[in-house]
Amino acid sequence: MTSNSIFSMHIPTRILFGCGELKKLATEKMPGKKALIVISGGTSMRKYGYLGNVERYLKENGVDTVVFDKILPNPVKQHVMEAAALCRAEGCDMVVGLGGGSSIDSAKAIAIMACNEGDYWDYIPAGSGKGRAVECALPVIAIPTTAGTGTEADPWAVITNEEVHEKIGFGCPLTYPAISIIDPELMVSIPPQLTAYQGFDAFFHAAEGFIANCATPISDLFALEAIRLLYKYLPVAVKDGRNLKARAKVAWASTLAGMVESTSCCISEHSMEHAMSAYYPQLPHGAGLIAISEAYFETFRNDCMKRYMKMADAMLEAKSNRPSDFIDALVRMQKECGVYGIKLSDWGLKEEDFPKMVQNARATMGNLFTLDPRPLTDDEVLDIYRKSYR
Amino acid sequence: MTSNSIFSMHIPTRILFGCGELKKLATEKMPGKKALIVISGGTSMRKYGYLGNVERYLKENGVDTVVFDKILPNPVKQHVMEAAALCRAEGCDMVVGLGGGSSIDSAKAIAIMACNEGDYWDYIPAGSGKGRAVECALPVIAIPTTAGTGTEADPWAVITNEEVHEKIGFGCPLTYPAISIIDPELMVSIPPQLTAYQGFDAFFHAAEGFIANCATPISDLFALEAIRLLYKYLPVAVKDGRNLKARAKVAWASTLAGMVESTSCCISEHSMEHAMSAYYPQLPHGAGLIAISEAYFETFRNDCMKRYMKMADAMLEAKSNRPSDFIDALVRMQKECGVYGIKLSDWGLKEEDFPKMVQNARATMGNLFTLDPRPLTDDEVLDIYRKSYR
Repeated sequence: MTSNSIFSMHIPTRILFGCGELKKLATEKMPGKKALIVISGGTSMRKYGYLGNVERYLKENGVDTVVFDKILPNPVKQHVMEAAALCRAEGCDMVVGLGGGSSIDSAKAIAIMACNEGDYWDYIPAGSGKGRAVECALPVIAIPTTAGTGTEADPWAVITNEEVHEKIGFGCPLTYPAISIIDPELMVSIPPQLTAYQGFDAFFHAAEGFIANCATPISDLFALEAIRLLYKYLPVAVKDGRNLKARAKVAWASTLAGMVESTSCCISEHSMEHAMSAYYPQLPHGAGLIAISEAYFETFRNDCMKRYMKMADAMLEAKSNRPSDFIDALVRMQKECGVYGIKLSDWGLKEEDFPKMVQNARATMGNLFTLDPRPLTDDEVLDIYRKSYR
Repeated sequence: MTSNSIFSMHIPTRILFGCGELKKLATEKMPGKKALIVISGGTSMRKYGYLGNVERYLKENGVDTVVFDKILPNPVKQHVMEAAALCRAEGCDMVVGLGGGSSIDSAKAIAIMACNEGDYWDYIPAGSGKGRAVECALPVIAIPTTAGTGTEADPWAVITNEEVHEKIGFGCPLTYPAISIIDPELMVSIPPQLTAYQGFDAFFHAAEGFIANCATPISDLFALEAIRLLYKYLPVAVKDGRNLKARAKVAWASTLAGMVESTSCCISEHSMEHAMSAYYPQLPHGAGLIAISEAYFETFRNDCMKRYMKMADAMLEAKSNRPSDFIDALVRMQKECGVYGIKLSDWGLKEEDFPKMVQNARATMGNLFTLDPRPLTDDEVLDIYRKSYR
């Protein structure tokens, strides 16, 4: 398998990266005059002062603010609709997503629903969605306080529709953030286990995008650098969350992996995980990915051997000569991050739900299966779930 | 020297890359309804059918066209002003640059002058320019038929003001192309020597941007990949211009090096060459760079040793342990491309002009000297010219 020789790249986001860069909110040209700031229902954005700083910097820049603070870890459609209504009522002309992927993804979906009619699911082109065309969206500013989703450098928003158990990633050129500020200083307070879960989410964006059949020379460049940086620095950031150098390397790797999602694509590992957390919303996305990863990557080991060896080269900074070097390095990295051996049963998933999850993965994010190195059968998908069970 | 840990990236251009991609002109959403197509005063755009194809595809896409066909290899301000007047008279709302860097750079400058008052030099913030703010610019589509300038992936336009002997690169966020189509099939007709000159221009964009004191993690990624690809494939493309794989690799390297110019910057080697061709417009830009390159990179050999070794690593695909490996590899690459040993005297430059050129380089592109690995004295600059003389 080699990269596609015909490809495109279009990442119009203005990316500002570095420790202390949050203060650029006070001086950069803003895309609006009144911002809806979208944060989680938790306490951390206030407790650590991030929300206060964002409000203050925006005020210094002449931008008024309104806060929506209900976003769940697996964000739901209901909150998107509620916040979009608030956005209209308050006359906001921009949306700031501050927090983890859930807040930023919600900000993108809210930016759509603040200027399109009907229900958010009307615009979703998969599952039970109706696939209506998105005509416009408010400009979004993404300020991640975690390193994992890469949503600051891609157009995707992953939202769950609880009524129909569908967790679907959707985006269009209008949902690229106008500006993304990645300030590693906002990430020092993430506890070790979450740091690991989120870092592995980034890792799998890169690894999946690298073995996807739509990989390109530009996505390869981003992916291998993300993989190299995460292998080297994620264990350091997990062990010492105040190590700003490690936090910065992991944050940059996550942004690079977001650019992989903009130039290549995730594959069925993400479809499978979305099906899991559509039924078990308490399961963190990264933990779900880690749980199925060993069985998942084993499945494709003989289908893209050169690419597995290239990923191993990047991780080990030495020449690999067997595809399983990649899987060995992945296991080693999980052990160093203290997250090896996560099983689906640990999170209360039930074996009898697996066939339903296979169907859900196909129905909601089936398109990603078409990007796999080779087509997987339903039995193979089921087998990956089973091997990851206990 | 290490990369800056605070950095930004903003390349809003939609890049379409690949053999046959020119036809996308017929189907992509266009940013206007009437295009000024800017081409050189030579015959090749008509002879090889490129102009006809561009006109036909745009017509299929509902876009009318007008042609301006006077651009010189070192494009001049007078033609920018003349074409901008034509653009206004014809009511064009977009500009297509088709050809080498001269045509695309001119298209950017024309796009500025089509909607800003006064003289182009009023907007130039260096030399005798007045540094007025650019308020708007027409959207530009860049279609390179050479691989070297990288202008398809950066905002820069290099234009010569003959009256004052100033050749200055200028650009702003408005002069990024809206769309760039890089189709290696348009490059098969470039003769070997020009292929080499242009390829080395790209090489030096990457190498200068890699040792610049404003280098960043993202520019490093683009730069090392461009250097790796050019070392491997430029000699192949020079020897066999019809080798589409090599043409594509060199074209992609040139675009990557353009992204280096958007995320890092050229340094004083480019200032020095611009001063040379401001006085000797018959000297091809790439030939001028090649002529001074060995003495130039020798000058900084002990100032960024690790970076020289990293460039050597990328070229040799093996671990280097001395900075001069880079210079040795550069010489070897020039020999393989048949362009080693170019001397300034070969192109009629006179030794007595060197002091004047040193002053010109500082006056017109002096800002690039501030990005060098360490400050160069005028004597050192003079010395590089002298060592490259005969």
